[in-house]
Amino acid sequence: MDLPETTTLLLRRESGVLHLTLNRPDARNALNATMVAELNAVFDAIAADATIRVVVLRGADGHFCAGADLKEMMAGGLKAPTAGEADPVERWSRSFGAMLRKAGSLPAVLIAVCEGAVLGGGFGFACVSDIALAHREAKFGMPETTRGLPPAQIAPFVVERIGLTQARRLCLTGAQFRGSEALALGLVHACFDDEAGLQAQLADTLQQVLRCAPQANAVTKDIILKVARMDMDAVLDDAAAKFAVCVRGAEAPEGIAAFMQKRQPRWAS
Amino acid sequence: MDLPETTTLLLRRESGVLHLTLNRPDARNALNATMVAELNAVFDAIAADATIRVVVLRGADGHFCAGADLKEMMAGGLKAPTAGEADPVERWSRSFGAMLRKAGSLPAVLIAVCEGAVLGGGFGFACVSDIALAHREAKFGMPETTRGLPPAQIAPFVVERIGLTQARRLCLTGAQFRGSEALALGLVHACFDDEAGLQAQLADTLQQVLRCAPQANAVTKDIILKVARMDMDAVLDDAAAKFAVCVRGAEAPEGIAAFMQKRQPRWAS
Amino acid sequence: MDLPETTTLLLRRESGVLHLTLNRPDARNALNATMVAELNAVFDAIAADATIRVVVLRGADGHFCAGADLKEMMAGGLKAPTAGEADPVERWSRSFGAMLRKAGSLPAVLIAVCEGAVLGGGFGFACVSDIALAHREAKFGMPETTRGLPPAQIAPFVVERIGLTQARRLCLTGAQFRGSEALALGLVHACFDDEAGLQAQLADTLQQVLRCAPQANAVTKDIILKVARMDMDAVLDDAAAKFAVCVRGAEAPEGIAAFMQKRQPRWAS
Repeated sequence: MDLPETTTLLLRRESGVLHLTLNRPDARNALNATMVAELNAVFDAIAADATIRVVVLRGADGHFCAGADLKEMMAGGLKAPTAGEADPVERWSRSFGAMLRKAGSLPAVLIAVCEGAVLGGGFGFACVSDIALAHREAKFGMPETTRGLPPAQIAPFVVERIGLTQARRLCLTGAQFRGSEALALGLVHACFDDEAGLQAQLADTLQQVLRCAPQANAVTKDIILKVARMDMDAVLDDAAAKFAVCVRGAEAPEGIAAFMQKRQPRWAS
Repeated sequence: MDLPETTTLLLRRESGVLHLTLNRPDARNALNATMVAELNAVFDAIAADATIRVVVLRGADGHFCAGADLKEMMAGGLKAPTAGEADPVERWSRSFGAMLRKAGSLPAVLIAVCEGAVLGGGFGFACVSDIALAHREAKFGMPETTRGLPPAQIAPFVVERIGLTQARRLCLTGAQFRGSEALALGLVHACFDDEAGLQAQLADTLQQVLRCAPQANAVTKDIILKVARMDMDAVLDDAAAKFAVCVRGAEAPEGIAAFMQKRQPRWAS
Repeated sequence: MDLPETTTLLLRRESGVLHLTLNRPDARNALNATMVAELNAVFDAIAADATIRVVVLRGADGHFCAGADLKEMMAGGLKAPTAGEADPVERWSRSFGAMLRKAGSLPAVLIAVCEGAVLGGGFGFACVSDIALAHREAKFGMPETTRGLPPAQIAPFVVERIGLTQARRLCLTGAQFRGSEALALGLVHACFDDEAGLQAQLADTLQQVLRCAPQANAVTKDIILKVARMDMDAVLDDAAAKFAVCVRGAEAPEGIAAFMQKRQPRWAS
């Protein structure tokens, strides 16, 4: 499947890996309506393309993402909708959450590279990734409440990411913090000091992920995302059915044979 | 709104901050029926008064709270209720949990200062606070099971606070531990060594909280408390509606203007 | 109640403590159908015997458990079931999850001793224990996806144990890691370096658990396991009713008297 044309995103495929770069460097890659629409289209394309096994999400020019483009929202006008009309501000807000949920449940593995500003909506992206790598000096935070607004579509993902106890402190103080604290909070999985460090971590991570069978990984991700959303017995019933499908699929014979023969399976590029 | 008269609590307002002190020092501020009733009344008053933005909860004379006053409960008599009668012991127990839930969902930010004994119900208070500061040598624990009783209205909040994995060990061993371990467990957010250290941390924390807009903070807290209680899509729908209300409210124009003009918003005292 | 006869498990009672050893050392104690059936029977017997207060689960000969015995499963044949027939592979898979849930909700306290291989299903056992002790060099991981299979009945318990954020990285990379990292992840509660260290930790832990009243501990465990499965108000209602039962039971008068008299209660062996 072809990927959509985009003006605010850079896309580069390297075999099973899609490098996806937020590219509005003049605005520290802030999310405007165009970028949200393009991300939605790209995530739909990724979800439909089983050959994309990993997505590496990064921002152009040293910043990950400074959050929502409030200027654009304010310029769009804030008058209340007339009766019966959908509220455009409410829809604008909700679209972020919908996009973050889509990003967080891609069948591919989502790796976020957090550098520079990781604020508001950018913070949200970090929270829905499967693996987050952060520059030790990256700047995380939700400054929304200091500007009179709730981080409405971000805060729920922060709770999901690091739990209520840390989320409530961060949300209610507007605290900003570095990548090293993000690691201590369990928000990201590793820290790097410079581009060389990042590239080494990324290469290791990609190698690990690519050793895992693509379909088995997608099934596993689907299972674990259900734990918060379904009764445990229902999760396990569903998981057993999926296990049986995988046992009889194409990957299991190859994977088990490779294991017995002490060789790499064919999907480990 | 006036705050209620109390005999077991000390109340002191300082602009938007209410200092609330548990004041039964002879019993290490153990929770008796009077104190629970007064706390309920005070929390109701706080919830109805939007000018109270922060509550600092502390115990008198170096102890936070030694838990429920078991002596009073036992003195009340333990005979089983007659058929059709409500069980007074069950009601006594349940009233703690109701009070802790009320404390944990105040629209104001609740800061707990944990010193000395932080046991049983006192432990519960720490678990429902937004920000908990602990003396490094404070003594945390749930000794209930060593006395033949379950920490019935406390343990669920411990699970919510630090997760099942650590909660089950603490609950089933009756372990006591220091403030420094409470920090490592993610139960509290920072440790202090003495009164000067506490006052410095408290001043920093208050300054951070007061930079956040009061209504935006209250809305944000309401949103994040829903994550454990509602489906994620329902949380995000609700949050988007609240966002739209805030955008058109009094705080957002001031907050965004202050940000553009690089000045403090007017609510940052 | 007598414990069942077993061929793959070693059982040894020492007063209130049952030492349960997985004993297929030639297969690094991999779980085959016989062992799963025997574990189910033993767990049923334990659940019905209130005199067993603690279960210490360990593997023979330096390994905890290398996971499911895939060879046996494959030897059982993989042809799809005919219409209307239950799928034997699906049932085989689901039986692990059912057994892990049973292990995790025993009224007794479950202590897991994690050494050597703690893989797949062995990892699952660690995740449902109340207290997990790990050799610093023990090897944890879910290698399933590298073999083309999802860790279907394991991964949900990993999410429950350490949260989604760390679980998704571990599941989607097939990462293997040591006991020391398991401690940092909050998967286990303490690490030991050698058998003497283990015995010291075990003795301390047993002493702590045995100071807690058996019935109060069982009730408490039941309460905290409900937090993820029920609405918080329903959890607290249930907990209050259980509290009243305990107050009027045999343990509370003894426990409170012992506390007042500064002596050990009679259940502290």
